[in-house]
Amino acid sequence: MNNKKYDFELEFKVRDYECDLQGVVNNSVYQNYLEHTRHEFMKTIGLDFSDMFQRGIVAVVARIELAYKQALQSGDRFVCNLNVEQNGLKYIFYQDIYRLPDQKLCLKAMVTTTTIINGRLACSDEIAKTIEKVVAKREI
Amino acid sequence: MNNKKYDFELEFKVRDYECDLQGVVNNSVYQNYLEHTRHEFMKTIGLDFSDMFQRGIVAVVARIELAYKQALQSGDRFVCNLNVEQNGLKYIFYQDIYRLPDQKLCLKAMVTTTTIINGRLACSDEIAKTIEKVVAKREI
Amino acid sequence: MNNKKYDFELEFKVRDYECDLQGVVNNSVYQNYLEHTRHEFMKTIGLDFSDMFQRGIVAVVARIELAYKQALQSGDRFVCNLNVEQNGLKYIFYQDIYRLPDQKLCLKAMVTTTTIINGRLACSDEIAKTIEKVVAKREI
Amino acid sequence: MNNKKYDFELEFKVRDYECDLQGVVNNSVYQNYLEHTRHEFMKTIGLDFSDMFQRGIVAVVARIELAYKQALQSGDRFVCNLNVEQNGLKYIFYQDIYRLPDQKLCLKAMVTTTTIINGRLACSDEIAKTIEKVVAKREI
Repeated sequence: MNNKKYDFELEFKVRDYECDLQGVVNNSVYQNYLEHTRHEFMKTIGLDFSDMFQRGIVAVVARIELAYKQALQSGDRFVCNLNVEQNGLKYIFYQDIYRLPDQKLCLKAMVTTTTIINGRLACSDEIAKTIEKVVAKREI
Repeated sequence: MNNKKYDFELEFKVRDYECDLQGVVNNSVYQNYLEHTRHEFMKTIGLDFSDMFQRGIVAVVARIELAYKQALQSGDRFVCNLNVEQNGLKYIFYQDIYRLPDQKLCLKAMVTTTTIINGRLACSDEIAKTIEKVVAKREI
Repeated sequence: MNNKKYDFELEFKVRDYECDLQGVVNNSVYQNYLEHTRHEFMKTIGLDFSDMFQRGIVAVVARIELAYKQALQSGDRFVCNLNVEQNGLKYIFYQDIYRLPDQKLCLKAMVTTTTIINGRLACSDEIAKTIEKVVAKREI
Repeated sequence: MNNKKYDFELEFKVRDYECDLQGVVNNSVYQNYLEHTRHEFMKTIGLDFSDMFQRGIVAVVARIELAYKQALQSGDRFVCNLNVEQNGLKYIFYQDIYRLPDQKLCLKAMVTTTTIINGRLACSDEIAKTIEKVVAKREI
């Protein structure tokens, strides 16, 4: 069961074209769900992935760890959640996927991202300040 | 502008992973939108694509015609609509995609589907009767 | 059987993640095959899709017509062929997919493309001259 | 540089539709490359993913760890390699992706797979014996 509190959560529904010949969502598609959730979260705090890229701030995934717990299948509804932490030049997203309505845990993910500015790993003040606010707000 | 009446409409939001290196939704992804809309429509009238497949009723696309009018891009919301007609063993879906909120027409599609039962083109009574009801209801 | 002569052909092998819950290649994936074949063809005549985009020449699909003849499945090898014709500001690609080794026709496609330069439909001299050479060479 | 010896390697070329709006291969697509490489490897040792599924042997990914080192982009050729180890009911695939021709390391992956038979985690003798042979052969 999902009793944790998250910085953000987004509801999805499995689309049939996301399922593979085993009749379940293909493993790679969970990364799509995770990415879309991160990008939607970013928008809610004023950061736009596409817009940042246009301005030379390239957000990239450095590392991803996925533990598959329960396969999603045709017709399933689910939520993808996230919490974010800063660690030096890295932003770490803890993301879980729970099936609805039974709240069965389907996937646990840890996604380590960073930013490349002018071709180099670098801290974006814009991102740093925004994420700090999220973390500060959570800790109150 | 979109003043037509449709049998069904579904709202979507572009996901960044659906965009290609031109920064717009890749052409093939529109077929995903169209398929998901047809399958969701089918569910509202009691027909489930995955469940029918399990029971040996294989719904297939025989022909698809797409006219691309306006590219969707990162962050765009849109609706995918459909009307359905029966023509012998074929079900023809007329599907349009309109960007929101400006109702700009993005795609016009005609998707001809049929069913294969026991390895042969065949009419599924279950589908035929259900679609007839949709058409009858519309004509009142 | 495939006895026609084509301007270009490319061999592929179905990848399992391209198959959907019916156990066959998902309909949208054929557009991926067609696109990749067009882009590889373009490279053989000196035109690079990504490079043209960087230089402001945006090649786009205006219209696509697909007739699905035989579903490809896990493990299938196939070729995707093309012939190209110019018609005003449009380039029309006739593309067929044949399964190997039995040369069974799987898909017939007509893909109408055009180019947008500085935000307007426009003729790219670079593309026009290159395609003309392909057509001229074929007619000898 | 890539001096290691692998149980299997497969060459690919980036397809433009695999690139996202940052102009590089989308993170999720690497899982497609990894999966296709594992399935092709399996075939070379007599195990077919799709065929096993038909017979009730469901090979699944339990855990995946990806370290992204260098983004692949339009036109890049690359190899995806693998080594396999058995550990109880799990098969662990160590998979690396190297860009060609410069052999630059792009991705390091560890993919933990297992099998579900009749709905339960179980050892497939067929898989176990086949993988043992691969490992034995390597150690000679």
